[in-house]
Amino acid sequence: MDRAIIAGAGVLPGLLLQAGPAHIVRLAGVASDPLEAPDMPARFERLGALFADLRSAGVCDLVFAGALSRPVLDPGQMDAETMALMPRLAKAMGQGDDALLRDIVAIFEEQGFRILGALDLRPDLAADPGPICGAPCDAQRRDAARARAVLAALGALDVGQAAVAAKGQMIGIETLQGTDAMLRFVGATRPGSGGVLVKRPKPGQDLRMDTPAIGPDTVMKAAEAGLSGIEIVAGTVLILDRAATEAACEAAGLALWAAP
Amino acid sequence: MDRAIIAGAGVLPGLLLQAGPAHIVRLAGVASDPLEAPDMPARFERLGALFADLRSAGVCDLVFAGALSRPVLDPGQMDAETMALMPRLAKAMGQGDDALLRDIVAIFEEQGFRILGALDLRPDLAADPGPICGAPCDAQRRDAARARAVLAALGALDVGQAAVAAKGQMIGIETLQGTDAMLRFVGATRPGSGGVLVKRPKPGQDLRMDTPAIGPDTVMKAAEAGLSGIEIVAGTVLILDRAATEAACEAAGLALWAAP
Repeated sequence: MDRAIIAGAGVLPGLLLQAGPAHIVRLAGVASDPLEAPDMPARFERLGALFADLRSAGVCDLVFAGALSRPVLDPGQMDAETMALMPRLAKAMGQGDDALLRDIVAIFEEQGFRILGALDLRPDLAADPGPICGAPCDAQRRDAARARAVLAALGALDVGQAAVAAKGQMIGIETLQGTDAMLRFVGATRPGSGGVLVKRPKPGQDLRMDTPAIGPDTVMKAAEAGLSGIEIVAGTVLILDRAATEAACEAAGLALWAAP
Repeated sequence: MDRAIIAGAGVLPGLLLQAGPAHIVRLAGVASDPLEAPDMPARFERLGALFADLRSAGVCDLVFAGALSRPVLDPGQMDAETMALMPRLAKAMGQGDDALLRDIVAIFEEQGFRILGALDLRPDLAADPGPICGAPCDAQRRDAARARAVLAALGALDVGQAAVAAKGQMIGIETLQGTDAMLRFVGATRPGSGGVLVKRPKPGQDLRMDTPAIGPDTVMKAAEAGLSGIEIVAGTVLILDRAATEAACEAAGLALWAAP
């Protein structure tokens, strides 16, 4: 068993385990679901111990899966390896999520591990281009184009995996708090109804880390925010439960499609 | 009395009246405060009647002041001039606030009126470059630079007069719902505390319309959102009540400064 999944919150770790056996690295302070696989407990503060445990278990490939909240670190628990990495991690933390994730990837690669993405293990979780449930009307296409333009402008600044436009106006732009918080904001403050959520990777984003994903929960939250459509990107955005996601779209009368 | 103020919500119409006598145009459905000046009632649907009233009162100069919500139009009330302008206005409405405001300016200019900005009448409401209350520390300067970069990237897309960064992360980007709604979102969803609100005109924005403004209310809402600083732009952002704004900063321990 030469693979380990560093497990965060949500269903993704379980979906990746279906692609083949793996150790499940559980970081202290990070919520994750129980799974039928050998656990490997770990701490952000003890990266040296984690590297050693991975090596003695024969792990070559690592996959980060699910939401990893930014850690609160206890300096009293740190081993020498983590302490040596702290200046580098502290610098990356001040530069946005992408910078931090890139640095974490680099640290594991320097230790000789190969980092895979969720899509390497489960390419079937991405969509082909075209309609997934219903098809976008012209107004929805225009709103999607507006939100895409905003995300393209922001991407170079390492912010924004999602945005909402309605009737040509921007009514939500994702920040650190994430897509769900943005959708709640939109629902509570927006004028009128309708509009489109666009979810896509940031330009240049490393898809092995923090792969953008939607699921039935995203569809329900978009519907609660009064939206009428969701656009994802073919091949790069995960659909976490295709059947339940399509059923949620049907139930809410929401169109879902994948841009090429 | 050759000047008229098209009055929206807030204290700005009253502040502009202090610069000299003016008619106060009150649009049906738009909230505005009572003022010691002759009222000129008007409707969005009857622009022809408004043009005639302004001319017969001898008005040459027009100033738009205060928040003008997007009108709900009653087609049954429309005069011929408004009806003839509808295709043009409808097109502009689909293209963002700036496009709509630019078109409204153009329509009044084509009728022979001169459009002034709030800063033409009250240049004393803008700030000089430098500290206004307290001075920013290095971390605040870095957060302000991050928010400025995001606003600069968005400005060409006609979205975003304000944004919030904290510890190098974007935690709020203004959309159609405005600065207050963004600050409430930040307060309700953010991790930790601290951070800086940056408020500035969009690049290329016509400052005669929708001049960005702050006041004691902005300071209180920023403090409630856990922020520690506000950056505005010298010469282009209005401070609606300088003494009360500085007092609110003092009371909340918030730094306020104007970038050059």
